[in-house]
Amino acid sequence: MKRAVVILSGGMDSTTAAYMAKSEGYDIVALHFDYRQRTQKREREAFESICDALGVVSRYVIDLPFFGQIGASALTDSSIDVPTGGIEPGVPVTYVPFRNGIFLSIAAAVAEKEGAEVLFIGVVEEDSSGYPDCRESFIEAMQKSINLGTKDSTKIAIKTPLVHLKKEDIVKTALKYGVPLELTWSCYKEEVEACGVCDSCRLRLKGFEKAGMEDPIKYAASAT
Amino acid sequence: MKRAVVILSGGMDSTTAAYMAKSEGYDIVALHFDYRQRTQKREREAFESICDALGVVSRYVIDLPFFGQIGASALTDSSIDVPTGGIEPGVPVTYVPFRNGIFLSIAAAVAEKEGAEVLFIGVVEEDSSGYPDCRESFIEAMQKSINLGTKDSTKIAIKTPLVHLKKEDIVKTALKYGVPLELTWSCYKEEVEACGVCDSCRLRLKGFEKAGMEDPIKYAASAT
Repeated sequence: MKRAVVILSGGMDSTTAAYMAKSEGYDIVALHFDYRQRTQKREREAFESICDALGVVSRYVIDLPFFGQIGASALTDSSIDVPTGGIEPGVPVTYVPFRNGIFLSIAAAVAEKEGAEVLFIGVVEEDSSGYPDCRESFIEAMQKSINLGTKDSTKIAIKTPLVHLKKEDIVKTALKYGVPLELTWSCYKEEVEACGVCDSCRLRLKGFEKAGMEDPIKYAASAT
Repeated sequence: MKRAVVILSGGMDSTTAAYMAKSEGYDIVALHFDYRQRTQKREREAFESICDALGVVSRYVIDLPFFGQIGASALTDSSIDVPTGGIEPGVPVTYVPFRNGIFLSIAAAVAEKEGAEVLFIGVVEEDSSGYPDCRESFIEAMQKSINLGTKDSTKIAIKTPLVHLKKEDIVKTALKYGVPLELTWSCYKEEVEACGVCDSCRLRLKGFEKAGMEDPIKYAASAT
């Protein structure tokens, strides 16, 4: 059976990508990162329950304490506040330096060990927080780097099924593939009730609204 | 002052690259990885003493416990023996899956945080152990990936001053730049006296021999 490594944070996007991978017939190796992000405990819980729901047997939870050492982001340095006033143009303070580059590099090592031919990552380019490491051009360059920097017998394709979707299309896609959206967690800030006002909550809520659907998770506040 | 992140294992190659960076006038941010390699304790000791000798103030020691979790290499899985019978063609069992991709990705994050414009890595392509992640084509692809996956204001060049040198030329270069070779550690296998027979010791000893120099570190055995 062909095998795929899926980077799975437990958010709506990566979970949808995981369900799409499953529907393509891949045997899934699920890869989760604890990078000392604010909501790591809640994300880990989401990851495990989604893996249970999807029937994923092979799971890697990778501990990356050094992200706290580097910091330089509101997600990994508790002295920098997560913005809640609305999405602004440019790269926001929640950007974690080269995070997806690091994640994809580790995913490549896992894929080479596991004999996987595909990596799935749920990046979204246009309708997103504006992170440079979510751009398709970056992902294409990383795919080339990975194939040049591993054994010649290792061939890895990176699949980004959501990269050009708008958030409402991701909600619709999730419903189509039977994604248990109630298990997913997207909030940057809180772990019990989603804050509703960080960039990630705003993007998610806007997606549900435009799709004409109701988000099954609980929110503490709603943006007006 | 212009700033460079230097990946410094404490071996002969990375130390020579660090001295070359210093001579080019860079303020050095030294970056060392504990990836659960067999000789991590001895390499860390080499790193610290080389930083002291070079007057490096900014040091990052990055803990990467997950390499032990992935394994799949004689350097990170103690159940796989380090070969001592001589260098053979192909990718050896000491290859650590996509190690330099992971190292360069983390180095890019540190460089972006620290405002460094250059990364130095002491990879050697032809006269080496045959690792795919030491090829110049891979390094060039990673440089492109890093610049696409970080902020547009971040511009990072990767310098590989040793990539096309033979080992004897690295020994000569090290002497020219005043590298304290007695502080460096290259052995894959042992931490007190270098084994003299692993691929890394063999390459180093051959370099000294061809350069007509004597290696200042102690060896337990010598290959015949």
